[in-house]
Order: sequence, then structure tokens, then C-alpha cells
Amino acid sequence: MRTLHHWPLDPDSRQARLALAEKKLKFKLISVAPWAPTEAFLGVCVEGVPPCLVEDTDGGKAIISTARAICEYVTDDGSGRMPLLPHSARERAEARRLCHWFDVKFANDVNAYILTERLEKCLSATGAPDPSELRIGRGHLKFHLEYMEWLLESRDWLACNQMSLADLAAGAHISCLDYLDEIKWSKWSGLKEWYQKLKSRPSFRPLLKDTIPGLRPPHHYADLDF
Amino acid sequence: MRTLHHWPLDPDSRQARLALAEKKLKFKLISVAPWAPTEAFLGVCVEGVPPCLVEDTDGGKAIISTARAICEYVTDDGSGRMPLLPHSARERAEARRLCHWFDVKFANDVNAYILTERLEKCLSATGAPDPSELRIGRGHLKFHLEYMEWLLESRDWLACNQMSLADLAAGAHISCLDYLDEIKWSKWSGLKEWYQKLKSRPSFRPLLKDTIPGLRPPHHYADLDF
Repeated sequence: MRTLHHWPLDPDSRQARLALAEKKLKFKLISVAPWAPTEAFLGVCVEGVPPCLVEDTDGGKAIISTARAICEYVTDDGSGRMPLLPHSARERAEARRLCHWFDVKFANDVNAYILTERLEKCLSATGAPDPSELRIGRGHLKFHLEYMEWLLESRDWLACNQMSLADLAAGAHISCLDYLDEIKWSKWSGLKEWYQKLKSRPSFRPLLKDTIPGLRPPHHYADLDF
Repeated sequence: MRTLHHWPLDPDSRQARLALAEKKLKFKLISVAPWAPTEAFLGVCVEGVPPCLVEDTDGGKAIISTARAICEYVTDDGSGRMPLLPHSARERAEARRLCHWFDVKFANDVNAYILTERLEKCLSATGAPDPSELRIGRGHLKFHLEYMEWLLESRDWLACNQMSLADLAAGAHISCLDYLDEIKWSKWSGLKEWYQKLKSRPSFRPLLKDTIPGLRPPHHYADLDF
């Protein structure tokens, strides 16, 4: 039995869902808003922030939180099946560098503005989005999309020529922004091709079905041929 | 040949130095301030932020940046010698959860206030420390130190009963704050015992010899029996 406490439009939770699905691990989802953790969730996860994976193992219950630890945990199963990190040590390092880039830099530069203003404030009813904060976040987003396009000029996937945790991290972020229609795809051809490949994977399907009451995604959000 | 671009009082650079030294890998250090990357450094490292490891390998030059990618890279050598991650998958996940905790939460809650105000502003001559920002950072630091004490009540090291990358991440942060005399050790007995063990390791010695011109550490900083 495996349960993931997550929030549908949280990039970190999405990374964990993608990694579990890529490894073909079955799991149950329990939704918890990052800004309003329930008592039940706090009883499971001391930090009180999704994602948190709870798994029954031979050695008892494993409780693993943070997207990074969950992604490495499901990758690191010793089986070699559906590898989510490349075979070469250098490429693994590049994948982990990019995971960190999305976990920290992208999150601070972009999410801290766009997702906080458009999702958290709206859904927690703590105020209207501040246009100046959104402008800062959108400026940063443009820089990050340019960087991703540049990486994809010489690689099939973000870290190397194989899909890796770096693509799941990036795809998790990009998909949340796409739900909010923040990406003008006509401007980003290399990135669009990469995102089309990612969206077509079975692991991505459940994310494309997510809906948040009162916040409808654009038509192209779930379209594989957008 | 192996070179680490680092900055002496940067917790991320210190993590990388500790991991390299724990794995008994020889390396040359080049100092670069995070807020003023040199042209030469930008030519090596696109992000322009230390730490960045440059290593001659059979397949050419490996350039690996971010503390997390460097620490995983040196750990992940397939040798099993001086392991920096525990043997059990659950304990590895716990170590990585804590690494992320220090990389992201501790860095945002504490460094963003204390190190920015007391180091970056002072050394880049961009202003005097703001007492209200310092107060916020010190409040957060107290919470983090309590959390570490709580973890150490049931474990020899932070993630489990074996030293791991989580201890190196934490030790890197704590040592920078200790250089600034921000930790009142008499209040934190469990933490002090853990830090004494860490400070006594050969990998830690070079960090205790670091000096920043114009910014002298307290007497106890380099003392193993403080």
C-alpha cells in the first residue's frame, strides 16, 4: 500500500506523481493544500508540506517527504527497470544539477511570484494577484524558457539524450504554468516539441485531467497536439 | 586534475569541499565570491554561482555545479568506500530529505537573512546589516536548531546512525554561522556533541582554517573542544 499526499497544482507534488508513474508504481492520492495542511496530514508529515509518500515496506512504514527525496527513492530501487537517471556519472550529475535548478532557482524566480499570486492568493482567499509581482515572475519565466530552449538545441531531453528526473522536474513546473496559460507556445518551438513528448507519456495523463474548482485550464492544456 | 571553484564562507561550497574530502579526493581550490563572479569563472560555469567542480575524466572535462549535484556525484562512485549515503533505501531517502531541507528551507529561512546581512552586504560594501532582517533570521535559526536537537535525540547522526550527506549539508551551514558567532553553544547540548564529532573529522580541518580578511571568527570557531 502506497499513498502520496499531494496538491494537484503543486510542481513538487507533480514531480513525485510523475516519478512514481514512470516507475509503474501504484499509489493512492490524498489531496492537501500546501498553505492549509490538515491535522491528519501534520500527524503523518512533520514539515506539513506536500508531497509526502507513505509506503508499507517489509521494515515498516516508510514516510518520505520532499519531491527530491521521493524521486531519488523511487529511482534508486536497484532494479535498473525504467531508469530515471542516466547511466553515466557525468550525465547523472547534469540531471541532478538541473533538478536542483528547478527545485530552487526556478521555484524562487518564477513560482514564488506567479503561483503564489495566481494560485495561493486566489485559492486561500488572501487577496488579489499583485500585477507588479506577476510582472517580475513573468520576466524571470522568459529567462528560464530561453535557457531550456538553449539546452534542448543540443540534447533530446534536458540533461542528455535520455529522459531523466530533470525532465520530470521541469515538466512538473511547466505544466502548472500551462494550466494557468502562462506560456505562449508559439514562441518556443524547441521547448514545445520537448513538452509534447513529455505530455504523450502515460505518466503525464493523470496530470492533464486535474481540475481545480473555479480555475479552468485553457483548452490546449490537455491537448497532446497543442 | 580536479578543481573546485568555491567561496570559503558559502555553505554550498563547504558541502562540496566536505564531500570531496570525505571521499579522499584531492582537489585544488579557486575562490570566487557568489555576488561577484569573475569573467574566468563565468567562462567555466554558466550559472556563475559557486560551487563548481571541474574534473578531468577519461571522457573529457566534467563540469558539475550546485552542491547537491557535486555531493551526489562524488558519493555515486560505485566503490562503496567511505559511503556518504546509508545502505538502506529508507535511510537514504531520509538523508536526501534533510539535504533538501538545508539546501532550501534552512537557506531561505536563515542564510537569506543572516549571511546576506552579515557577509554579503559587508564584503560587497553594499550597506550595513539591517537589524530587523537579522532578527527574523535569528528567530528562524532558533527553530532550526531546535529541530536538529530533536532529530539528534533519537539518532547518532542527523539522518540515521551513520554519518551522511545530511550531516555535511548541516555542518556546512552551522560552521558558517559559527564563524559569525551566531550560535550560543551552551544552549544546545545535543547539537554541540554532534558538531564536535563533525569538527573532529579530517575533512573539516581546512574549513576551520578559513579566514576572511576583516572578519575574524570567534576563538572557539577552530577549537575542537569548544
